[in-house]
Amino acid sequence: MPVFQETSNAARDLRILPSRAPPLPRLSPEPAHSETSEDNREVVVIGAGPSGLFLTLLLARYGVANSSLLCLDSKPGTLKAGQADGLQPRTLEVLQSLGIADEIISDGCHMEEVAFWNPVHSNRQTNGNGVHTEKGIERTSVVPDVNVPARYPFEVTIHQGRIERILQENLEVYAPKDTIRRSHRFLEHTVDDAHPDFPILVKYEYDLPDGTTQQGTVRTKYLVGADGARSLVRKCMGLELEGETSDHIWGVCDFVVDTDFPDIRKRCAVHSDAGSVMVIPRERIASGDYLTRLYVQVPGEVARDVDSETDKKTADKKRRGAVTLEYIFEQAQAVFAPYNIKIKEGTQPDWWAAYQIGQRMTPKFSARTSDGVDRVFIVGDACHTHSPKAGQGMNVSMMDSYNLAWKLVHSLHGLTPQRPLGTADPVLETFEQERVDVARRLIEFDTQFSHMFSGQMGEADAEAAGLTHEEFLRVFNEGSDFTSGCGIHYKNNRLIRTPLESYIGEVTQGDPLRGPLIPGRRLLNVEVKRYADGNTRQLQDEMPSTGRYHVLLVASNDLLDKSGSSQSAIVSSMEIIQKFPAGVVNPIILHPLKERFEWSDLPSCVKTFAEMRTYGLAKQEDAYEIFGVPKDEGLIAVIRPDGYVGMLAALTGSKLLDAYFRGCLVSI
Amino acid sequence: MPVFQETSNAARDLRILPSRAPPLPRLSPEPAHSETSEDNREVVVIGAGPSGLFLTLLLARYGVANSSLLCLDSKPGTLKAGQADGLQPRTLEVLQSLGIADEIISDGCHMEEVAFWNPVHSNRQTNGNGVHTEKGIERTSVVPDVNVPARYPFEVTIHQGRIERILQENLEVYAPKDTIRRSHRFLEHTVDDAHPDFPILVKYEYDLPDGTTQQGTVRTKYLVGADGARSLVRKCMGLELEGETSDHIWGVCDFVVDTDFPDIRKRCAVHSDAGSVMVIPRERIASGDYLTRLYVQVPGEVARDVDSETDKKTADKKRRGAVTLEYIFEQAQAVFAPYNIKIKEGTQPDWWAAYQIGQRMTPKFSARTSDGVDRVFIVGDACHTHSPKAGQGMNVSMMDSYNLAWKLVHSLHGLTPQRPLGTADPVLETFEQERVDVARRLIEFDTQFSHMFSGQMGEADAEAAGLTHEEFLRVFNEGSDFTSGCGIHYKNNRLIRTPLESYIGEVTQGDPLRGPLIPGRRLLNVEVKRYADGNTRQLQDEMPSTGRYHVLLVASNDLLDKSGSSQSAIVSSMEIIQKFPAGVVNPIILHPLKERFEWSDLPSCVKTFAEMRTYGLAKQEDAYEIFGVPKDEGLIAVIRPDGYVGMLAALTGSKLLDAYFRGCLVSI
Repeated sequence: MPVFQETSNAARDLRILPSRAPPLPRLSPEPAHSETSEDNREVVVIGAGPSGLFLTLLLARYGVANSSLLCLDSKPGTLKAGQADGLQPRTLEVLQSLGIADEIISDGCHMEEVAFWNPVHSNRQTNGNGVHTEKGIERTSVVPDVNVPARYPFEVTIHQGRIERILQENLEVYAPKDTIRRSHRFLEHTVDDAHPDFPILVKYEYDLPDGTTQQGTVRTKYLVGADGARSLVRKCMGLELEGETSDHIWGVCDFVVDTDFPDIRKRCAVHSDAGSVMVIPRERIASGDYLTRLYVQVPGEVARDVDSETDKKTADKKRRGAVTLEYIFEQAQAVFAPYNIKIKEGTQPDWWAAYQIGQRMTPKFSARTSDGVDRVFIVGDACHTHSPKAGQGMNVSMMDSYNLAWKLVHSLHGLTPQRPLGTADPVLETFEQERVDVARRLIEFDTQFSHMFSGQMGEADAEAAGLTHEEFLRVFNEGSDFTSGCGIHYKNNRLIRTPLESYIGEVTQGDPLRGPLIPGRRLLNVEVKRYADGNTRQLQDEMPSTGRYHVLLVASNDLLDKSGSSQSAIVSSMEIIQKFPAGVVNPIILHPLKERFEWSDLPSCVKTFAEMRTYGLAKQEDAYEIFGVPKDEGLIAVIRPDGYVGMLAALTGSKLLDAYFRGCLVSI
Repeated sequence: MPVFQETSNAARDLRILPSRAPPLPRLSPEPAHSETSEDNREVVVIGAGPSGLFLTLLLARYGVANSSLLCLDSKPGTLKAGQADGLQPRTLEVLQSLGIADEIISDGCHMEEVAFWNPVHSNRQTNGNGVHTEKGIERTSVVPDVNVPARYPFEVTIHQGRIERILQENLEVYAPKDTIRRSHRFLEHTVDDAHPDFPILVKYEYDLPDGTTQQGTVRTKYLVGADGARSLVRKCMGLELEGETSDHIWGVCDFVVDTDFPDIRKRCAVHSDAGSVMVIPRERIASGDYLTRLYVQVPGEVARDVDSETDKKTADKKRRGAVTLEYIFEQAQAVFAPYNIKIKEGTQPDWWAAYQIGQRMTPKFSARTSDGVDRVFIVGDACHTHSPKAGQGMNVSMMDSYNLAWKLVHSLHGLTPQRPLGTADPVLETFEQERVDVARRLIEFDTQFSHMFSGQMGEADAEAAGLTHEEFLRVFNEGSDFTSGCGIHYKNNRLIRTPLESYIGEVTQGDPLRGPLIPGRRLLNVEVKRYADGNTRQLQDEMPSTGRYHVLLVASNDLLDKSGSSQSAIVSSMEIIQKFPAGVVNPIILHPLKERFEWSDLPSCVKTFAEMRTYGLAKQEDAYEIFGVPKDEGLIAVIRPDGYVGMLAALTGSKLLDAYFRGCLVSI
């Protein structure tokens, strides 16, 4: 019988609510209350699909103040069906770093394996007696879906509308509900020098309940177009998507399947004599059934006769219009034979569509106003469109936003280095440098992959053109580095400082794809053991996405030597960190020691600043081996707010830290 | 440029909402609409602390219809501070099986290690020169907090109010918001034979906004008291808590610490010459600080002088009243010396209290009405109270509810075997049988553990009484089986059928604590690989808590032999399952094969009923070794809705399944 005599203070409701990420500090003057209002916003985002919604969420979390953020979307609500459904391993890591991956990972469908099916006839079309053996398709190989190291070594498929709902629910923790205004159509933006603080004037229209349409305007400091492939923001910037629309037409359908095809719950690339199909297994739905998505190739001859009479655009539209639900399933049945495939009796498909593959992108993702500042940006499909085959759409788009958001808030909050009036922020400039590169690689990969996917495997002329199963498998496997999102490698710029080649060879070792620390690549997750409490932790969880830099002090074996390189690196790094805005750079210490030590064996700054950020080796994984750091050398790494390695230095090179941070942060 | 021509149907908003567990089917007549109303409920729960709230949530999830469930609580809201804060590994497994563990695991504090500190003087009070060396405390050992196999091998501490908030949010997914009525005080219940369908009449009172108090009544089929140690429901049942209140008084405080004690982020048992302290690290809070809970022993002499003048109860109250916040920290400082410990400057403690250890329980947890039916139950602190030292309170209480809920809904929904009118449901009777046993073990363990904890380690008379560090460590380690909740072993009853000793020896092998299948123990989680999609899965996640039984068909090596024991066990088990209400028993197939096979190699019922419930061995874990099942023998196991093994049979013994389910389910 515990008998409690309670005395408690009142201000602790915070204890029971979900955790919130802390906003970034602000050094620039807060806009006066009269300045931000219905008419003046610090950032306006156009479009609330995955990239626009994700950007708005990140801006709110990083600290763009409540009344100064606005997102306008032309549609009346989150997506109802279809479109993107796949999340890549790196996107999952990023969602986890924001604490919003749980529902997606537990309720989504995981794709861990890919099966490749090909025509039976390739090697044994006739047997010794000259009799044709069974025709149809056969399993050629089953390989892992993701073959680079990743915290979540699988893709997840789940309804895009569900991802949007999760993003929107989290946004409501950080921002007022009317931050997103739906059924608001962006019309144009102009630059109005008469309002130097809010120089972008955005015009939009919206429908009133009585059915009439009303126009409105809002002024802003920064405008981001996340308004899709037909982006009007892009058009206002004077930019166009450049590239080709191919002839390949595909049908796509989300439905509950009834089939005896044995690999229907795996991602499958099926090539048959009748054409190609991609199987994308999907999540379990409320009925207890599992959804399946099929991409079905429409053979070239369908509705081809319209070509002669009309221009290509109209002809393409007619050809796509000739694709019906019945047609998709007739064609799927022809590809899957001798297996049967149909829609489960008593169910209706969720969604179906016909589309045409094309790879296009704009050469620029930002525009500068006459005051010399980059104030207009585009992200997502507004920058690049491509086929859905490699499951990239939503991912590259959301990662555009992830790259832009912290740079934009650092600039807005006055955390980036001071610069002359009328000059661009070099930190913000890295957004375009980095993401144009990624878009270009996306376009290249998708062109190659789509071409091979739409080709007919095993035919003589196809083989001559390199369209063998082995070649397809090679392209698939080598592409995993890029498609998983885990192998993105940003080139040298202000935020990515690669040391001399000879130097890096000394610092980290091993296959660059397997996890060693390399400037420009994301920090691979490793399991570590926190010293203070003995807990096993995932290192990525110790650097959540709150817009802050981390300095990873990878100590060497000499950590307990008071005059050794590790302690002096720790002390001088901590001193350098203090020169920049409080809490924007956080130290993390890794040590390789097996023996126990006491806090008093280390410089006192360790317990003061890093008591809960000091880690040793976990039982299962050796972080030093994975990161390619010799235990007798150690190193210092800067990890950017988006989890990419920004810089490496030897333990004796802590002054490089100072140079790095002077390049991206204001010193105080 | 994918160009989508969309055709979509309207009824798919369900796709984007969070998943919901499917309710149990109902074979008993639904109460007529006029029957359930404000005045008539199928189940009324008194108390919305962790056990009552958890019970209400489970009843709603298992399918007790919306308007027929009511929970009354005397307090105005969820808990604001203090009280229970620890969740044991088995409780985490259960929360995970309901899909509500994520926030608790990601934001709670994990306790993976326990440090034991003892007086320095035990071995070296003086040195060779007769000079006293440093006094104080020293670390004697650091051991794992949990030393039985568990999916989550740690305890989690987090604010009880936060757990209540998570339970309540999930309840709102399944039941109307006013299912829980707060500021409603239960007064009494009576049995009213004039209403045989709703024979329990519950009287309560509540406050009106004008400050006056109003009385109300509600009739119910079942009443559950989760109304704490001073339970009025228990009192109305004519039951009392039996046991002693000891003399030991402890102070407890939740606060942000400032200390140089090195193990403050670990669970610590500190014995010093000045008394004992237990350190419980807590979660990180919004300020970025971490909370700490201290249990501080109040030496026997405090306010002892009051004893002579008054009775013991009044004296105890006075002694507890003598404990102030200042006193708790003076005493803590004395124990921790030479280390310093205090409240962090500028912060206020969250909560503090003084309590007295006692171990008490009631001999019965249920009461039968004159119609011969068990209609009144108690759970949680209403059944058993004890010290908080072993972190059991919230856990045993919530697990009482977890044991009761599915049995109550099975009985209410007519899923249990038909029986003559006026007789008790033998399935429901197992609640008391199983949980009285657990309460008894709880009381025994807590008596022993508290006694040792309050004792003074290392003194001569203490050592004579067995109060050595080694003995304390032994009690701690051996208790982990029980305290973790993972080693609960329900005795034989209608739902736990243990075969002959000789037989079990043949079926499963290995240390019973390490995971072999044993009737009465919970199924340990193992990693498996799902055949259909090649995904790595956690077996516990494949049997979520939806009130359903599972038949685990552990195939032997002969699985592909069409006349072998595995295929015949699968076919006959599937036939038996069909005899019981649809979906209430679900098959799960485990196979030990390394080679690929096709669905067509197995009986067709496997793909039909278990396509997504057939698993092979994972790369990291061998389920057969862990479950103690020889691969050339296999076996059949019944897993109860609460994850406990109900029965084991050889592959040739599938008829035992029929007998088992006839004992607990109605056949159709």
